[in-house]
Amino acid sequence: MVILTLNCGSSSAKYQVFDWENRDVIASGVVERVTQEGGSITHNAKGKSEYKMNHECPNHTIAVELIIRTLTDPEVGVISDMNVIKAVGHRVLHGGNKFTKSVVVTPEILDTFREVQDLGPLHNPANIMGIEAAQKVLPNVPHCAVMDTAWHQTMPDTSFMYAVPYEWYENYAVRRYGFHGTSFLYTAKRASVILGKKPADTNVIIAHIGNGASMCCVKNGQCFDTSMGITPLEGLVMGTRSGDCDPALAFYMMRKTGMTVQDVDTALNKKSGLLGISGKYVDRRDISKAMEEGDKRAELAFKMETYRLRKYIGSYIAAMGQKPDALVFTAGVGEFHAGVRAEVCAGLEHLGIKLDPAKNAIARTRNAETCISADDSAIKIFVIPTDEELVMTEDAYALMKGSYDVHTKFTYSFQSKDYVNKARAEGLKKDIEKNPELAKIVATAPK
Amino acid sequence: MVILTLNCGSSSAKYQVFDWENRDVIASGVVERVTQEGGSITHNAKGKSEYKMNHECPNHTIAVELIIRTLTDPEVGVISDMNVIKAVGHRVLHGGNKFTKSVVVTPEILDTFREVQDLGPLHNPANIMGIEAAQKVLPNVPHCAVMDTAWHQTMPDTSFMYAVPYEWYENYAVRRYGFHGTSFLYTAKRASVILGKKPADTNVIIAHIGNGASMCCVKNGQCFDTSMGITPLEGLVMGTRSGDCDPALAFYMMRKTGMTVQDVDTALNKKSGLLGISGKYVDRRDISKAMEEGDKRAELAFKMETYRLRKYIGSYIAAMGQKPDALVFTAGVGEFHAGVRAEVCAGLEHLGIKLDPAKNAIARTRNAETCISADDSAIKIFVIPTDEELVMTEDAYALMKGSYDVHTKFTYSFQSKDYVNKARAEGLKKDIEKNPELAKIVATAPK
Repeated sequence: MVILTLNCGSSSAKYQVFDWENRDVIASGVVERVTQEGGSITHNAKGKSEYKMNHECPNHTIAVELIIRTLTDPEVGVISDMNVIKAVGHRVLHGGNKFTKSVVVTPEILDTFREVQDLGPLHNPANIMGIEAAQKVLPNVPHCAVMDTAWHQTMPDTSFMYAVPYEWYENYAVRRYGFHGTSFLYTAKRASVILGKKPADTNVIIAHIGNGASMCCVKNGQCFDTSMGITPLEGLVMGTRSGDCDPALAFYMMRKTGMTVQDVDTALNKKSGLLGISGKYVDRRDISKAMEEGDKRAELAFKMETYRLRKYIGSYIAAMGQKPDALVFTAGVGEFHAGVRAEVCAGLEHLGIKLDPAKNAIARTRNAETCISADDSAIKIFVIPTDEELVMTEDAYALMKGSYDVHTKFTYSFQSKDYVNKARAEGLKKDIEKNPELAKIVATAPK
Repeated sequence: MVILTLNCGSSSAKYQVFDWENRDVIASGVVERVTQEGGSITHNAKGKSEYKMNHECPNHTIAVELIIRTLTDPEVGVISDMNVIKAVGHRVLHGGNKFTKSVVVTPEILDTFREVQDLGPLHNPANIMGIEAAQKVLPNVPHCAVMDTAWHQTMPDTSFMYAVPYEWYENYAVRRYGFHGTSFLYTAKRASVILGKKPADTNVIIAHIGNGASMCCVKNGQCFDTSMGITPLEGLVMGTRSGDCDPALAFYMMRKTGMTVQDVDTALNKKSGLLGISGKYVDRRDISKAMEEGDKRAELAFKMETYRLRKYIGSYIAAMGQKPDALVFTAGVGEFHAGVRAEVCAGLEHLGIKLDPAKNAIARTRNAETCISADDSAIKIFVIPTDEELVMTEDAYALMKGSYDVHTKFTYSFQSKDYVNKARAEGLKKDIEKNPELAKIVATAPK
């Protein structure tokens, strides 16, 4: 029995296949340029070399068919036929305020996603198309929606309400939703394991830093506050998104330049952040390289990104009302960019956050959870590689079996201190062969 | 010799007259409904009862003439003739990024204020009209502009830049400016005195909470960061202003409801904040009363305002890179509303901020600087009544004398540990007669 997870964007479809009996990922890949010319699939099956094939995908149904055909291909495939797939987990960006947990998709639920489409205009339409496509191709299995917003539904109203006319909340659902919830759920639960605490006793601040980036204040194992808002624009400085700025800045630019709402929206979402400041770079590796070569605007971008992160850490330490157990870095930049982590922690020593520079420099792998704080740091600093697909897989499995519930009443496999991600454990062996020092900083559950 | 200070709004003109030789305020007042029907002046001369007269003021020149006539009136006036006025200090909201300190107004400088008029559309035009009117009425004295933005010009670029396209900064001066600078200057300098430290060694976080509200991170005696932005909309939850919210919230509302840019701008500036959440109240006394009577939305407004304040305190503690010396409350709400201060500090004990509830309850006067932290609080908590008019007066005097310079190179009278505000000292005597406990919490400079 396998569980398929799908993450459909407007022009892409990512997938992963999980072998439930062996608790192992047996394939993953991505279909690119869906609905555009020049489509292709890149497919990685366990133990085989990467397979790439060009294939036009004028719509998402054809993309999903291509995925299924590839998965069942005698040569590069990993399953005998598609009936082996017993459930599908779909990533959905915006679930609005109706869902506190994952659900089996029904026509009514698809309607709800359509209702909040205006709140996630870049993602929700594609997410819905992906679900519809997969339902056509795999009509006999439960399709489950795993929403980025669900984790954040435990926020108190003081965190999720905006100080705007109350009717906007009542009539138009204007509130903070928060995103990256699946990642925060995974990393928060894993932090509990490493800390040797029950989730309900766990207080951590998690920085999910990828191209998009957001931060979560996790109090007593639940989301207490988060930096993204009604849309994924608010909060941290991101690759191309501005994050926080004066709400009146947009009004000023429209009046001053004649830009339209759409122009400013696009500028703040796609031409701002690190790209806007540096003028050139989105990728933090490029930013760091340019900085080293003396690019002042790249340096400004780096310093603004890390300063904003520091301010959010401080604000969440205040919001929490008590010293957090740990600060957690995750997602691409959080997992790999030691320079960003070092600059974020610099100057937070008086708050009990003390990085060990040597440990931090070593922690650059997706294959291990590591502890990079100094031994006398009051607040631990962990790097916990995220695994959103595993959450989606387990939600889909549990929904199919009828054993699923909201995360506070449900126990994931990765909440066990004996949990092992097989692929990562393999990778870690190789990482340690290359750098034996890495073994010393691997974070493990207390005995 | 007296110095006149003027603060002209779109339909009002506030004034204060300072007797330089005796270092004392001898009169203050306000002309209301300027440019509207039903104008009037309310005038308070030292040692006399309040005087109020109706007088139509179709423009600001007539308002300033009314002020001068009132000041020189044989009955209610305080000066023999207008030649006694040797300099005028004018409050100007937005000085853009060209001024780091107060200046004598020239036609070129008025042009600069006009250039940044779009950044302070509610205030700058009235400020300019006030200066022009006063120049007509008092043509032979220096008119000095004291800008709310000048204090904040020491911010590093990491604090003042937004993560938006860099050209917006280059071409349209899009950056964080910050406001309430004159108040922050005064309270920061007074905090240095009470702490017994040089300004350059003083690190404080100041919460200026009035109808408008902003916070300032003062590092080494200078502004390091502040919560208001390119306009006074950003930051804290205010009486009618939203403060921080997802920049895309405005775009969503425009698309969803057909509201125009002006509609949303007005809603966020005038119908949001405490008014927006509670649906009824702007004044924190009304909010508190309604809360006590069980009004849930008033309670939400109170909790959101104080939660936002707590988060900013945490973020500025992080930004500072070291433990601050003190947290300072100022302006109407900061000086008088013990309930707001208590809720702001609640849950910040782990950060070294520990309020003494009894002291906090007593500190409700504009006549004394008080220390309301517990004896074992690592960070002191002060209430420092602001005095923007005194800064304006001293700036105008020093500009006239040629002895003025930027605040880091200039010493104000109130930076002396022997400084006494005569009117407040008088008031304090009466306050202490009513409540002798107050005497115990008055903050004084170390011997």
